[in-house]
Amino acid sequence: MTIKSFHPPQRVLMGPGPSDVSPRVLEAMSRPTLGHLDPVFVAMMDEMKVLLKYAFMTSNELTMPVSAPGSAGMETCFVNLVEPGDKVIVCQNGVFGGRMKENVERCGGIAVMVQDDWGRAVDPQKLEDALKANPDTKVVAFVHAETSTGAQSDAKTLVEIAHKHGCLAIVDAVTSLAGTPLKVDEWNIDAIYSGTQKCLSCTPGLSPVSFSEQALEKVKNRKSKVQSWFMDLNLVMAYWGGATKRAYHHTAPINALYGLHEALVILQEEGLQNSWARHQKNHLALRAGLEAMGLKFVVPESERLPQLNAITVPEGVDEAAVRAMLLSDYGLEIGAGLGAMAGKVWRIGLMGHASNPRNVRFCLSALDDVLGRIKAPVQHGVALDAANRKLAG
Amino acid sequence: MTIKSFHPPQRVLMGPGPSDVSPRVLEAMSRPTLGHLDPVFVAMMDEMKVLLKYAFMTSNELTMPVSAPGSAGMETCFVNLVEPGDKVIVCQNGVFGGRMKENVERCGGIAVMVQDDWGRAVDPQKLEDALKANPDTKVVAFVHAETSTGAQSDAKTLVEIAHKHGCLAIVDAVTSLAGTPLKVDEWNIDAIYSGTQKCLSCTPGLSPVSFSEQALEKVKNRKSKVQSWFMDLNLVMAYWGGATKRAYHHTAPINALYGLHEALVILQEEGLQNSWARHQKNHLALRAGLEAMGLKFVVPESERLPQLNAITVPEGVDEAAVRAMLLSDYGLEIGAGLGAMAGKVWRIGLMGHASNPRNVRFCLSALDDVLGRIKAPVQHGVALDAANRKLAG
Repeated sequence: MTIKSFHPPQRVLMGPGPSDVSPRVLEAMSRPTLGHLDPVFVAMMDEMKVLLKYAFMTSNELTMPVSAPGSAGMETCFVNLVEPGDKVIVCQNGVFGGRMKENVERCGGIAVMVQDDWGRAVDPQKLEDALKANPDTKVVAFVHAETSTGAQSDAKTLVEIAHKHGCLAIVDAVTSLAGTPLKVDEWNIDAIYSGTQKCLSCTPGLSPVSFSEQALEKVKNRKSKVQSWFMDLNLVMAYWGGATKRAYHHTAPINALYGLHEALVILQEEGLQNSWARHQKNHLALRAGLEAMGLKFVVPESERLPQLNAITVPEGVDEAAVRAMLLSDYGLEIGAGLGAMAGKVWRIGLMGHASNPRNVRFCLSALDDVLGRIKAPVQHGVALDAANRKLAG
Repeated sequence: MTIKSFHPPQRVLMGPGPSDVSPRVLEAMSRPTLGHLDPVFVAMMDEMKVLLKYAFMTSNELTMPVSAPGSAGMETCFVNLVEPGDKVIVCQNGVFGGRMKENVERCGGIAVMVQDDWGRAVDPQKLEDALKANPDTKVVAFVHAETSTGAQSDAKTLVEIAHKHGCLAIVDAVTSLAGTPLKVDEWNIDAIYSGTQKCLSCTPGLSPVSFSEQALEKVKNRKSKVQSWFMDLNLVMAYWGGATKRAYHHTAPINALYGLHEALVILQEEGLQNSWARHQKNHLALRAGLEAMGLKFVVPESERLPQLNAITVPEGVDEAAVRAMLLSDYGLEIGAGLGAMAGKVWRIGLMGHASNPRNVRFCLSALDDVLGRIKAPVQHGVALDAANRKLAG
């Protein structure tokens, strides 16, 4: 056995994440490793919390990155806030609502599912009805930006309804953070988790989370211990919390945190609102190009995420073959459909660092070429002009 | 608010981990990010499994890195192998046995604790007695290399005893992997977890694990679902397992995995046995220097880990002040005591890339200087000669 060093090719990542990572972030990750209790590192952790509060638009003291991917951020919310026997309403409009159900049930909770069509926003009226029918509900959970479909739900309204019925609200913001308006304090979100590999354009592996005072009250007053030692906020708080002395909990992923710190510094330099506007502008340009080709969006216009464009695969086209050609001939990754949408849609991400005019033009040119070669039923030679008009505007 | 990019100082990491990271590993982490289902990345995952099997000395098919730190690797073993009501004997001889107890109880298991003195190996006779007294025990768990004390236990014998009584054995190898002999197949270990930031000299954040066929049988035949969705091996296997098509579970920490791959390539280049021998040789040199100064080891000679040297703080010395001076004047990090040993011991790591003659000499010189300045009751000007004799031998 002799295995050599791994030298990955340079891709353009326009799938549902990971998205292209800024060279600044990659460089930051290669800086010298510090001990996880080194005073210099601890000072960096404090900066990280300030930067994450900025990104989430919150003053929540417990705002920090979980030392594992977004799925673990999701689980951190559920294991801390759901006790055995608790009824939780999960609004599902894609793959990730299903994962929430799994989390509720594995915590011993009772999941009441409120189903919406995949590709649509969560319907607030259905949530309202479900809460009336289940007055003993403790928690409401939904996905702000469904990565599997590209649909955006009205988080503010959904949280309002949850609170009206005395429930805490858990919000999945894996794909929304930094790409589309998200206001944790203004919308009174109780618990939220995100990922680093979407609109923050950091490498995957960490999950920023934030918890309100009310949510922490519930955690502190649990009747049973949190079933996960690794994710128990009572313990994590002693390391990431505001205490003067940091207590060892687990060894923090030092260099991954350097990367996230740099990604957040970049976000702060650009400004959160400017980042949202950039995502929107590039989305509109990509959309103009795709629609000029005759490709159709899965999600109605008013519910669309700018950072994740799900489009229907044209009749008769082998979607996997198209993705394989894009990857081999252009080094371009776009995403396949997930779950019920597998084989039926492509998901084109314009996230974070990858949301730029060059990528819009590159993706449209590549798609135009590949779809032309396989004689797909689309309009050729028109996408770039349409996108350019939007980019110039 | 304006927070700038973070530029950490260059330390020499000779604590209990993270240890100094090879520049090759840091550089690998800064390579271009790939998608987690990219065929090139999936091929790298296959190499990673081969390399981890080599490091663990196992042919276990389920050998892979958990996408989170060692504490999550520990929890992955317990949540999968312990069902509610299962009796688990935990041999505790330091901090991490206590963490195992927490894990057992949070899984709904019944933990029977077998206590040994901190700083000593686990006593096989006590385990034998406990198993005779508790014939309904399902699992035995112990720490191979106690990071809190520097004691090494006889994993082979402990696993034999567990098997004789029909139990599965879970072994914590966070600090032992690659630093001291560890033979998963030869010793018939059922489930093992480690960390990347000790003798592999990778950055923290991943936890290599390996599970035997018998262990996986138990996981597949569970009566209840694994309580953690993120750590459920039934799901993780579909992504990391031998299947021809990888199913999406969570987004893998791509760049962190590049780092681990490179760390394992370095291990393979050196050879596992050579790595063990190097750790032993540098330990003996450090030991000679420390003993020449009059410093005393916590652990008896036959039970000592070469990669983690716990020494007693001399009478009247402010141990935290010494560590602070080492850090500020030399950029040298050594570890404090944990748990019951806080304030009483220093822990000097010689792990992975950091286990080299330069570090042995550097640490001894720095200690000699700092202890001299605070007038500690130790012998001065003799440590380096003693170490040099060992290094020349």
